[in-house]
Amino acid sequence: MKKIRTGIVGLGRLGRQHAENAAFRIPHLELQAVCSVVPEEVEDFQKTWQIPEGYVDYDEMIEKSDLEAVLIASPSGYHCRQIEKALAAGLHVFCEKPLGISLDECRQAERAVEAHPDQIFMLGFMRRFDPSYQYAKKKLEEGAIGKPILFRGYSIDPESAIEGAIRFGPTSGGQFLDMAVHDIDLARWFLQAEARSVYAVGGCYLHPEFASFNDGDNVSALMQFENDTMAFFVAGRTAPHGYHIETEIIGTHGTLRIGGTPRANQVEILDRHGVRQECAQNFLERFEEAYLNELQTFAQCILKGEKPDVNVYDGTRATIIAKAATRSFRDKELVWIDVRNA
Amino acid sequence: MKKIRTGIVGLGRLGRQHAENAAFRIPHLELQAVCSVVPEEVEDFQKTWQIPEGYVDYDEMIEKSDLEAVLIASPSGYHCRQIEKALAAGLHVFCEKPLGISLDECRQAERAVEAHPDQIFMLGFMRRFDPSYQYAKKKLEEGAIGKPILFRGYSIDPESAIEGAIRFGPTSGGQFLDMAVHDIDLARWFLQAEARSVYAVGGCYLHPEFASFNDGDNVSALMQFENDTMAFFVAGRTAPHGYHIETEIIGTHGTLRIGGTPRANQVEILDRHGVRQECAQNFLERFEEAYLNELQTFAQCILKGEKPDVNVYDGTRATIIAKAATRSFRDKELVWIDVRNA
Amino acid sequence: MKKIRTGIVGLGRLGRQHAENAAFRIPHLELQAVCSVVPEEVEDFQKTWQIPEGYVDYDEMIEKSDLEAVLIASPSGYHCRQIEKALAAGLHVFCEKPLGISLDECRQAERAVEAHPDQIFMLGFMRRFDPSYQYAKKKLEEGAIGKPILFRGYSIDPESAIEGAIRFGPTSGGQFLDMAVHDIDLARWFLQAEARSVYAVGGCYLHPEFASFNDGDNVSALMQFENDTMAFFVAGRTAPHGYHIETEIIGTHGTLRIGGTPRANQVEILDRHGVRQECAQNFLERFEEAYLNELQTFAQCILKGEKPDVNVYDGTRATIIAKAATRSFRDKELVWIDVRNA
Amino acid sequence: MKKIRTGIVGLGRLGRQHAENAAFRIPHLELQAVCSVVPEEVEDFQKTWQIPEGYVDYDEMIEKSDLEAVLIASPSGYHCRQIEKALAAGLHVFCEKPLGISLDECRQAERAVEAHPDQIFMLGFMRRFDPSYQYAKKKLEEGAIGKPILFRGYSIDPESAIEGAIRFGPTSGGQFLDMAVHDIDLARWFLQAEARSVYAVGGCYLHPEFASFNDGDNVSALMQFENDTMAFFVAGRTAPHGYHIETEIIGTHGTLRIGGTPRANQVEILDRHGVRQECAQNFLERFEEAYLNELQTFAQCILKGEKPDVNVYDGTRATIIAKAATRSFRDKELVWIDVRNA
Repeated sequence: MKKIRTGIVGLGRLGRQHAENAAFRIPHLELQAVCSVVPEEVEDFQKTWQIPEGYVDYDEMIEKSDLEAVLIASPSGYHCRQIEKALAAGLHVFCEKPLGISLDECRQAERAVEAHPDQIFMLGFMRRFDPSYQYAKKKLEEGAIGKPILFRGYSIDPESAIEGAIRFGPTSGGQFLDMAVHDIDLARWFLQAEARSVYAVGGCYLHPEFASFNDGDNVSALMQFENDTMAFFVAGRTAPHGYHIETEIIGTHGTLRIGGTPRANQVEILDRHGVRQECAQNFLERFEEAYLNELQTFAQCILKGEKPDVNVYDGTRATIIAKAATRSFRDKELVWIDVRNA
Repeated sequence: MKKIRTGIVGLGRLGRQHAENAAFRIPHLELQAVCSVVPEEVEDFQKTWQIPEGYVDYDEMIEKSDLEAVLIASPSGYHCRQIEKALAAGLHVFCEKPLGISLDECRQAERAVEAHPDQIFMLGFMRRFDPSYQYAKKKLEEGAIGKPILFRGYSIDPESAIEGAIRFGPTSGGQFLDMAVHDIDLARWFLQAEARSVYAVGGCYLHPEFASFNDGDNVSALMQFENDTMAFFVAGRTAPHGYHIETEIIGTHGTLRIGGTPRANQVEILDRHGVRQECAQNFLERFEEAYLNELQTFAQCILKGEKPDVNVYDGTRATIIAKAATRSFRDKELVWIDVRNA
Repeated sequence: MKKIRTGIVGLGRLGRQHAENAAFRIPHLELQAVCSVVPEEVEDFQKTWQIPEGYVDYDEMIEKSDLEAVLIASPSGYHCRQIEKALAAGLHVFCEKPLGISLDECRQAERAVEAHPDQIFMLGFMRRFDPSYQYAKKKLEEGAIGKPILFRGYSIDPESAIEGAIRFGPTSGGQFLDMAVHDIDLARWFLQAEARSVYAVGGCYLHPEFASFNDGDNVSALMQFENDTMAFFVAGRTAPHGYHIETEIIGTHGTLRIGGTPRANQVEILDRHGVRQECAQNFLERFEEAYLNELQTFAQCILKGEKPDVNVYDGTRATIIAKAATRSFRDKELVWIDVRNA
Repeated sequence: MKKIRTGIVGLGRLGRQHAENAAFRIPHLELQAVCSVVPEEVEDFQKTWQIPEGYVDYDEMIEKSDLEAVLIASPSGYHCRQIEKALAAGLHVFCEKPLGISLDECRQAERAVEAHPDQIFMLGFMRRFDPSYQYAKKKLEEGAIGKPILFRGYSIDPESAIEGAIRFGPTSGGQFLDMAVHDIDLARWFLQAEARSVYAVGGCYLHPEFASFNDGDNVSALMQFENDTMAFFVAGRTAPHGYHIETEIIGTHGTLRIGGTPRANQVEILDRHGVRQECAQNFLERFEEAYLNELQTFAQCILKGEKPDVNVYDGTRATIIAKAATRSFRDKELVWIDVRNA
């Protein structure tokens, strides 16, 4: 069986998940090399999972290792350069979201991808690969709810993760870029159109720290898309019950809801608190299958020479829209969006 | 508008509910007289609600007051004699469950009813009048789930009411007669057949006091009915979450569930306990509408001269079945039932 | 027992519900007179329910009948004048929403109410009297979810009612005034603040007819309130599943959801469509108890001389906010709101 | 990394799932050989997944292939002999349920396992490895619901699979052995006791064919366990909505429910059928993770020399109990059980 020699850069929480998936759960991927600026992470991962090669320098991995594909799970600021480097070296590239922090970076990544049309480039908007989202998309395409009218997306992190959220807040790009960007991608995917206008509001309701970097702990935005559909987004950091990712598509003949109750499993508890479900607590728990499926898709695209559903322009456009929402929130005004001429 | 002059005996918790319903919420009933052996209850009720007549003696009320109908909500041991007395005086009778404690009493009540065929007699199996149960019955009759296969009925009192349950335990007739009798009536109503065999088990899992009167704090029974359908019952006293009345009818082409989540209202709470609904805490809260609807039906039957859906034989037969379950539980053996020749 | 002699004007669908409630289900109200411009409605209602007096002229009822209170359920355009007339005649007034169609009318009603400070005036924002909303309000006030962050209110009429919606569309004032005004009142009630800004979008997704009167069949609006809280509204006409009234309050320490599944009852059906609940189909079915409770409250306020929770200014302010949303939708721009100086 | 050379016998639907899991999803397993009496299955599987060795004869595989472990997924009648053979050859053995069809076979398997105490033997009661069941077990052990009172287990196959159910019915051992045996194992696991008595009923409600082999299309059983706990089982074949595996444990201080709504995913649909979830349709869909986790556990036990939680006696005892239920159903009488002296 054909095995694709794969390397990975970034061994943080999500990076390790990708690495394990590539090493053991995707038949057609073979994890040949791991790379992290933290030598202990590299060593530890190599030893635990018997990975042949380890690097602390990305460029060195790309040059020395005989790779066919690379998975980029490094901090967002490095994405663009690492994409370019890997593509230039002839590798297929899977890159975690966001594509880039600035619009310039996104455009640069676009040009790199365009310069290597025969190599696969895939962006990690993993929700599209979650079985529930895929089921909903299929239902929509089958006409089960008619034409979409309104998209509603909630991405609310658990309060239990608030320390990290505050620590990384200043460099996160703000709630819309950091949290809502997944919902923005989903809205584009489900509504099959681009955003035209946005009004965003929010504030610091529990954690005043967010104000110091011009952000809120909970924000929301209402958009109208070019096909007149509506989209509403909430991004927050203070859910007491868990990791709340909820999506709704109201259509002309029905509504689809995904994750309305973000239950951790199929257990229901009846006790003095009532009848209740306990909730998923983080993205790895919620999207375990999605992370697996997206790498599976990446491998299939490489083997079959097919283009993945999520391309480089999806990354740029979600970034443009998230930035428009951020501007509306900060300037307290309605912002008009033109993703084609941003 | 025709108003039916009505009296009530028994002003306990449920009696007061019936009295208020008769006085104010059923246009065709007019509460003329209230009766209780506790003079303060009579006085208090008369004063608060301006009821013309008050009695501490049931016979006196029947003789002196110019009533057309009486509602019997007294302790179970009095039911049979009060039914006879009222029917003999020409009154229509609504009687709370159970019809009688002994089978002899039930038969005696049957004879009294048979002797006055033009008067309405109705037994308070109120669940049949709950909107959800009526909806389920209608669905079943429309063929929505095909033919019934299995009935499951849970009647579990909240742990918060345990003191009263233990206090009244010795005279309650046991869990099957006191709690499960409603489910037994529902099973007969939904399955449209009589029970043929029963095996019952149970024990004292939290409150050893129940053993002293040969009962359990939680019991269950499996029955087969004459049309081969199955019925499973749980009666308990230790629900931490509230008053748990749940019913399921599995049919050949579908299943109906009533009250699977015994939520108190339409509010869902998302907090550190997860996603949850708080529950109804007692029968008045859960069956408020049912108590209203059954009296409404009683009034309609009187006005139109129609026989109610719940008759005296339903009372006898539910009692026979409950007693068979009790015997199975106590003797630890399979019991065969013949409601027609009990 | 003190009975308040009450009249009603308007015997449409909702008027009849109020009339029946006043006649039979509120002990302290006595329905003395009914009034409608349709003589047949008056006659029919009087005959069916034995109501002493009937009128086809509102002024005549106010002048001739010896009333203490009046319930106004006439078309919205008459509200203001009928309020004035009744108050001037010394009557207590319960008036259906909206207070008035124009802001001028609202102000006129305010002056009338202010001129009769000893008479009760209550506006029919009935959702505040629904048990589930009251439960949620109590939870919020007890601090169960901390401080509110975001309010979300959906009011979506069933597609089955679309003909009427289109017919009355031109005079309805638009989706925000006709449908969302209840949610706007709830948002003010739960958030305890006034709206400051609004951006509204929408369109005709299924029924182009709405465009002809400058409306949409589905619209939404995002507002920020003066205490920085957020509110999102959806008003629509095309729900296939039923009458969808859903409310959410996201707080700093929890979230409350009311009616997320607008189930008609406690029955769950498992069949070839999956596991499902059938839904309430109209406002009388969903808010039966609320309509009862609000009249009960009206009667109590009269008897005890207490001011109801919903006053004339709530009517004016909800109207101001709904009109601002309408303007934003029509002019496609952000609108700033000042309810105190509108 | 240590890889355990593994073979599999049986390439039916479940066998293929095990084979793929062993080949690609369990890092420490390496699928060396596949065996089936159907040569085409062997060939096809080898080719698709590049498996080195293929056999049509089990004995030949055991003798010739250099295996360390074997997975037995052949028809039930072969289990016992294949277990013996593999253990005698020094292999670790994972065997699908049931352990054996007759009690003699089970005893024979027990002796074989006892004769090779240093080899791992694990039985495929996979539900114990499902994340939701594991969560429930953990909750129970933590005392979240106090002590167990009653176990309820439903295993209802979808009507869509009825043809196969009827075809294999004559040799399936009946509903209790074929379907309810999983629930019987779960009941023993959750209640931590053995069954003492059983009464079983049932019938042919939709498919008379089952009567011809002395079975029913839907059956149920009530048991009491030695620690006085109760257990109720339903096994059926006619669910229109999907594969309905539902479990409930009522405890003294709370209740746990697993799979009450057997939803296929996190999507909720609101359409003309109401608010609904579509359901999982088969065991591979429902228990995908459980099948993976059990093989993972098998591999860990081999590597660490630990005994798995599910042993050979669990197989025997579940069989004894299922057979007692079958006898009660057929003979229409109460049956007493003694798993230690069966």
